[in-house]
Amino acid sequence: MLISKNIAIVGVTGQVGQVLLKILAAKNFPASQLRFVASERSAGKQIHYQNQALTVEDIASFDFSKVDLAFFAAGSEVAKHYAPIAANAGCIVIDKSSYFRMDPAVPLVVPEVNGYLLKNSPSKIFAVPNCSTIPLVMALKPLHDLAIVERVEVATYQAVSGAGIKGVQALEDEIKSFKNSDITEYDNKVPKLGFPIAFNIIPKIDDFLPSGYTKEEMKMTDETKKILSPEILVNATAVRVSVWQGHSEAVHLRTVKPLELAAATQALKDFPGIQFCEAEIPMPFTHAANNPIVWLGRLRRHPQDSAHYLSFWLTCDNLYKGAAYNALQIAEKLFDSLAKNA
Amino acid sequence: MLISKNIAIVGVTGQVGQVLLKILAAKNFPASQLRFVASERSAGKQIHYQNQALTVEDIASFDFSKVDLAFFAAGSEVAKHYAPIAANAGCIVIDKSSYFRMDPAVPLVVPEVNGYLLKNSPSKIFAVPNCSTIPLVMALKPLHDLAIVERVEVATYQAVSGAGIKGVQALEDEIKSFKNSDITEYDNKVPKLGFPIAFNIIPKIDDFLPSGYTKEEMKMTDETKKILSPEILVNATAVRVSVWQGHSEAVHLRTVKPLELAAATQALKDFPGIQFCEAEIPMPFTHAANNPIVWLGRLRRHPQDSAHYLSFWLTCDNLYKGAAYNALQIAEKLFDSLAKNA
Repeated sequence: MLISKNIAIVGVTGQVGQVLLKILAAKNFPASQLRFVASERSAGKQIHYQNQALTVEDIASFDFSKVDLAFFAAGSEVAKHYAPIAANAGCIVIDKSSYFRMDPAVPLVVPEVNGYLLKNSPSKIFAVPNCSTIPLVMALKPLHDLAIVERVEVATYQAVSGAGIKGVQALEDEIKSFKNSDITEYDNKVPKLGFPIAFNIIPKIDDFLPSGYTKEEMKMTDETKKILSPEILVNATAVRVSVWQGHSEAVHLRTVKPLELAAATQALKDFPGIQFCEAEIPMPFTHAANNPIVWLGRLRRHPQDSAHYLSFWLTCDNLYKGAAYNALQIAEKLFDSLAKNA
Repeated sequence: MLISKNIAIVGVTGQVGQVLLKILAAKNFPASQLRFVASERSAGKQIHYQNQALTVEDIASFDFSKVDLAFFAAGSEVAKHYAPIAANAGCIVIDKSSYFRMDPAVPLVVPEVNGYLLKNSPSKIFAVPNCSTIPLVMALKPLHDLAIVERVEVATYQAVSGAGIKGVQALEDEIKSFKNSDITEYDNKVPKLGFPIAFNIIPKIDDFLPSGYTKEEMKMTDETKKILSPEILVNATAVRVSVWQGHSEAVHLRTVKPLELAAATQALKDFPGIQFCEAEIPMPFTHAANNPIVWLGRLRRHPQDSAHYLSFWLTCDNLYKGAAYNALQIAEKLFDSLAKNA
């Protein structure tokens, strides 16, 4: 039971930290068991939680042995330095950054997909996958179990909040400078994301690697292989679009064994955390934003080559199931599992 | 030489008609040889072209024998009824609608790709492919010539102008009702496109077919097969995004023969109408809008399976090369070819 534990949130002022607080508040998690931790810069600030103001503590002097679990909702640098310190102090770390994801000693967990890794793990550190990987492996898992997913082609439509508060501000600033639909009249000389995002799309998320893929695209490839199977071939194009919350993905895949549409439909309907849309078209603004559901629809066969090919569409809030909610699920399952073993 | 001909523009008040006028004006096409034609509703209106006001004539009574060529930039219903009347009057018809595209007797032409169809064609009617098909076949053609394209997976990011003036107004209205980045405060109760498009994406363009594909997606499949080869397998997901002009596409493909990246790069660089971007990232707002170029970049090999798989990104103005400019190219090549034969 998470509710009986003392927990720290590192990076509480960020977007993922704030969503984590919303979810904890909705669960009536007691403020007395909650500690807020951040860099020296934010230390001393007051953050409201339920009806109380809690003071943010400096991570450099924070005693992680006083909490049972720490959510790291900060960047890779913070995770790299402080997660091992916390773990050595006996604290369980659930890290949202990419730093530990590909570490063979660290479980990379989406509870519905590979939650079994949470039982009896020798690791004190657990990694939350990338926000575009999580809904993808959720959708692939039931199909993989039925017919072995061989090859996945995925194109993403990722929200600006995936680029942090900076991304949200970029879109907001640019939209406010909108004058009319004559695109030449919109003042956008210094785009915060490097390129304009309002009335545009950016087919580059994170840095390029020598292969021509971006780091974001290779996260989807590498993490999906670690979570589902090293045999799966994943080819991604990751694109930023002018949406606030909710990453969407157009997925085209091939299975090793033939797969009936009816069987695929039933498996997706039965999978926890997925809302299967039959006639409805799931979209980020109308469906995904502010809830933990993976919305999946438009399941269909390849128009000319039907036995092994399926295509579908999904959308999922990158801050909820794509980050904070998945982290919280890991914590809950870990403590439930520990309680059962006790 | 198009410039020596009398031409009519049917549907001159629409977006494609207006872009056609811009291009003709830039070429100094003489107003004296230009006739504007529309439905009874628009007949009698004055439309400015260069320094003159031309009166729109009623299509129902228009004598197509008085012009050498008619651009049909109207819908399928107008094309269905009036294109055969114009053709029977001896007028060449270049039609932007989907009505004649899959008619085996009508050439479906992207001049750079299959311009040879314009020589000695018995047809008086020529069809312009769908705005998302045109840049796709432009990019596929040089690769197909090198190594035979076997299979294409494509996800699109299509501008609102692809939905007509209604699409542009939908985005404009919704953006104007934007209050702040709290998405719950934006008033969007009756979206003109059926679903919100501002801060959203819509994975449905045109109607659904029983297969689960949309008509837009099957246009890409069927037209690519007609233009390039009936053997090519094309699987598309077509998505509307909040961009004014410029359709973009994430393309993942397999070739029958192995294909070196360097050879693919050279072939794309050499292909007329394509601007190959090496380090630059082509985007609709910054690159595609208001010019006839197919901007192609992010060419790369599959991360795990490199010999036969290539991926790339393209963006292209749906009103220019995707419609008006391609129509004008057809006209110019037709008359050049006729002049050579005379």
